[in-house]
Amino acid sequence: MMIYNIDKLFEAAALKGHVCAGLDTCADYVPPEERRKSACDAQAVLLFNKALIDALFDVVACFKVQIAYYEEMGIEGLRAYSETLKYIRKKGCLAIADIKRGDIADTAERYARAHFSGDFEADFVTLSPYMGMDSCEPWLKHARNNGKGAFVLMRTSNKGMRDFQYQITMSKEQGAENNEKIKNNIFVNHKKTEVNKNKRLYCVVGDKLAELARIDKGNYGYGAFGAVVGCTERDEAAEIRKNYPELFFLIPGYGAQGGGAQDAALLLRDGNGGVVNASRSIITAWINTVNNEQLTENKSSIDNLFAAEAARKAAIKMRDEILDFQRNSVRRETI
Amino acid sequence: MMIYNIDKLFEAAALKGHVCAGLDTCADYVPPEERRKSACDAQAVLLFNKALIDALFDVVACFKVQIAYYEEMGIEGLRAYSETLKYIRKKGCLAIADIKRGDIADTAERYARAHFSGDFEADFVTLSPYMGMDSCEPWLKHARNNGKGAFVLMRTSNKGMRDFQYQITMSKEQGAENNEKIKNNIFVNHKKTEVNKNKRLYCVVGDKLAELARIDKGNYGYGAFGAVVGCTERDEAAEIRKNYPELFFLIPGYGAQGGGAQDAALLLRDGNGGVVNASRSIITAWINTVNNEQLTENKSSIDNLFAAEAARKAAIKMRDEILDFQRNSVRRETI
Repeated sequence: MMIYNIDKLFEAAALKGHVCAGLDTCADYVPPEERRKSACDAQAVLLFNKALIDALFDVVACFKVQIAYYEEMGIEGLRAYSETLKYIRKKGCLAIADIKRGDIADTAERYARAHFSGDFEADFVTLSPYMGMDSCEPWLKHARNNGKGAFVLMRTSNKGMRDFQYQITMSKEQGAENNEKIKNNIFVNHKKTEVNKNKRLYCVVGDKLAELARIDKGNYGYGAFGAVVGCTERDEAAEIRKNYPELFFLIPGYGAQGGGAQDAALLLRDGNGGVVNASRSIITAWINTVNNEQLTENKSSIDNLFAAEAARKAAIKMRDEILDFQRNSVRRETI
Repeated sequence: MMIYNIDKLFEAAALKGHVCAGLDTCADYVPPEERRKSACDAQAVLLFNKALIDALFDVVACFKVQIAYYEEMGIEGLRAYSETLKYIRKKGCLAIADIKRGDIADTAERYARAHFSGDFEADFVTLSPYMGMDSCEPWLKHARNNGKGAFVLMRTSNKGMRDFQYQITMSKEQGAENNEKIKNNIFVNHKKTEVNKNKRLYCVVGDKLAELARIDKGNYGYGAFGAVVGCTERDEAAEIRKNYPELFFLIPGYGAQGGGAQDAALLLRDGNGGVVNASRSIITAWINTVNNEQLTENKSSIDNLFAAEAARKAAIKMRDEILDFQRNSVRRETI
């Protein structure tokens, strides 16, 4: 029986809670004394990451590594990226490569090999769907062969997501009809139409992902491919969760972007079905616990271990808050 | 006066024609004897690229380097990517980094620094718009400060583009009205509506890009940010060109994907306004000129110089075909 990485992620979330620790690490986040001691910024970031992984691996479901922070540091940065992924996986943890790639089929296959094997091997990737499903499908082969997984952008957590993801689209039937009429530049008198045929673009994307999930489904009912759904719009959370029971969610928007534990819990299902990403609130938690003097003194005692301990506390607090909300909502349902 | 890279690209297209040579290079495209001599595949690809650049720089408007092919080769591949970009720019040519990135603002700024400076500095990038305009705007700062440019995916050349880019969206007014009704789950009786308010998603993206182009406009009337528009749908080409006069187009889909010189010419304007990408038809042109025996013989004479000469011929042929169609269409218009 095929064991998909999505099954392993489900089990990790059941065991260790819903936190996905985002290693969006730049050198400014590293304690200054440690940065000074390092050969270069990329090296400082790598050692900082390793300390974080050591402190977090038993209290988070997985790690997400945002490749942009490493690309910014050039070749050496990508070496640190590669070593970070290796270290996460050596610890028996799951690594999500946050790369948001999306390209035509031939190129997608190159990207898939790049991020599912070799120097940059991860367990999951994130993908951007704008080019269409043929830009996602080459990655699916790797789900079937090696259990790999992906989270496709559905409804993101940034403000600009309203620009395109919130566009209301017309149903296929309406579309086909209008297509002809648009061509001939004539007016349309819409017939009485059921409204829920008109979906926001992000639901059109979600529907396609649900189709994929029905084909490559793991042992806990979730597709090998899940979706990125931000926890920034509380009003829609329950409905999205209900409409896409087969999609495991990677949930950004927690903390700095305005989403809270309650918002995140609404996107979970039966105590699972999602992991909630937090980056800065975890990896820079140490900064709030020190003062300027402690940082600038000669041979400051604020080191990576100190920062990692603060990160662990922040992750545990976040994990427990989400679990509390999630249990309360389950309790309400069963009463 | 600010000189944007888009101005330089306009001038290059006026001088050297409309070909954008796509260095989507994998080791299989390198003559076997050269590959054998190289320390590793990434090295073989780099030397092959340099020979191609030497043979092409005076007959193409620019080069486009598809990063997926280099990411596939890991760290060493990205070193070859970096050296390829440097070599193109050293030759005084413009380099488009085909990276199709798209992420939230903070992350977009990291990506922008990664690809507009340092190891991976390029003159232009390609961007994916799914997350919204706040994922594009951080790149614009680099247009203003350093003249950099970007091509945002609008209507791509792959089959799957119909999945989302072709969705017909409702006008803002309709949208706002329906939004309420969707929430309340009631039926809508559409009023008589002007059809051209209903746009395909790719036009919604195009409209946003046109807004940007009106703010950061180069000396020849084109915005610092242009659009990726494939030459695979002849029916729509003339209309797209007419509707977006301020957008310079990066045009994929030529050759292997089914578009021809005539299709590409339809997306040009007054003999400029676009560059047409071709990759395999140029960089693997040499393969059609040799037989298996020539390849497998000991110390085969089929080397990078031979391949580069074939690439040059293919690029010149493509350039002249596009110019012919474009001149013919201008001639028709002036008669």
